[in-house]
Amino acid sequence: MRPVRYNVAATLDGYIAGPGGEFDWIPEDPAVDFAALFARVDTVLLGRRTYETVLRNGPTPWAEDARVYLFSRTLRPEDAPGATLVSEDAAGVVAALRAEPGDGEIWLFGGGELFRDLLAAGQVDTVEVTVVPVLLGAGVPLLPAGVPRTTLALTHSQVYPSGMVALHYSVRNTG
Amino acid sequence: MRPVRYNVAATLDGYIAGPGGEFDWIPEDPAVDFAALFARVDTVLLGRRTYETVLRNGPTPWAEDARVYLFSRTLRPEDAPGATLVSEDAAGVVAALRAEPGDGEIWLFGGGELFRDLLAAGQVDTVEVTVVPVLLGAGVPLLPAGVPRTTLALTHSQVYPSGMVALHYSVRNTG
Repeated sequence: MRPVRYNVAATLDGYIAGPGGEFDWIPEDPAVDFAALFARVDTVLLGRRTYETVLRNGPTPWAEDARVYLFSRTLRPEDAPGATLVSEDAAGVVAALRAEPGDGEIWLFGGGELFRDLLAAGQVDTVEVTVVPVLLGAGVPLLPAGVPRTTLALTHSQVYPSGMVALHYSVRNTG
Repeated sequence: MRPVRYNVAATLDGYIAGPGGEFDWIPEDPAVDFAALFARVDTVLLGRRTYETVLRNGPTPWAEDARVYLFSRTLRPEDAPGATLVSEDAAGVVAALRAEPGDGEIWLFGGGELFRDLLAAGQVDTVEVTVVPVLLGAGVPLLPAGVPRTTLALTHSQVYPSGMVALHYSVRNTG
């Protein structure tokens, strides 16, 4: 089984972006080794808004040869060159990716709504949150409403010099 | 200066209670040494709803001889025997408590709205969140809306056997 990993930076009060989509509260911390974190990722999953935000911000953070799956009910294939557009049965598509042979990993890049939908469908294996030492008081929630209670198991934690703390969990059960 | 410490358990998605006020998602973990954590506390601050919840649930978790300040605009002094009722100028009252001599600590017990009001008024010194390995998807937020962006500095972290992680921060600046 190839794992689906949701990896995201969040504020201590549980936001993954500011009220206007801001990310300027995430410190640059050279101690975070993204290359090691995502070395085995060969597949990336994104919702439309996250995809458009990433495209606006220069080079994509994943490997050039990674397969990109874009989840949107409104985009057409020609809007997303180089990506596979998924407009229905997101859970089924992801279940098939997880069942592929090999040990490659699937990076659920975001955003929160895609995470919510896949978590509710039992298609997320790990939740990896880097807690940033800031309170925003408002913004885009880590987990939008609509998921039953989900129990996690802590598998890894790491404190960074900037005061960020990475907390990695495996998903035990939902509902 | 006697510090005001906000200490609370929260879910990974940033809730301090479930949609119906539930706390059943907080595991009992014998490794959490409450006595050591609150050994120097001699003053406790609470909002009305939190006060009533605590009273319903048996013995109070603070020392018997601690001074209790209850913040409410609706209660009358006879509703809160043994507590000092604060119905106006919460920030001024807390500023005076912080300025008292000695090294006793002030435990901001909650809830979220009192935390929000005192944080916005610059009267909170430390934010101590024990992150519980669960996602609720809905509930009472750690920090209700109404506070400008607040920068924190990580001072302490501790992983418990149950998978809870204590993250302690000092408040650097608000707004």
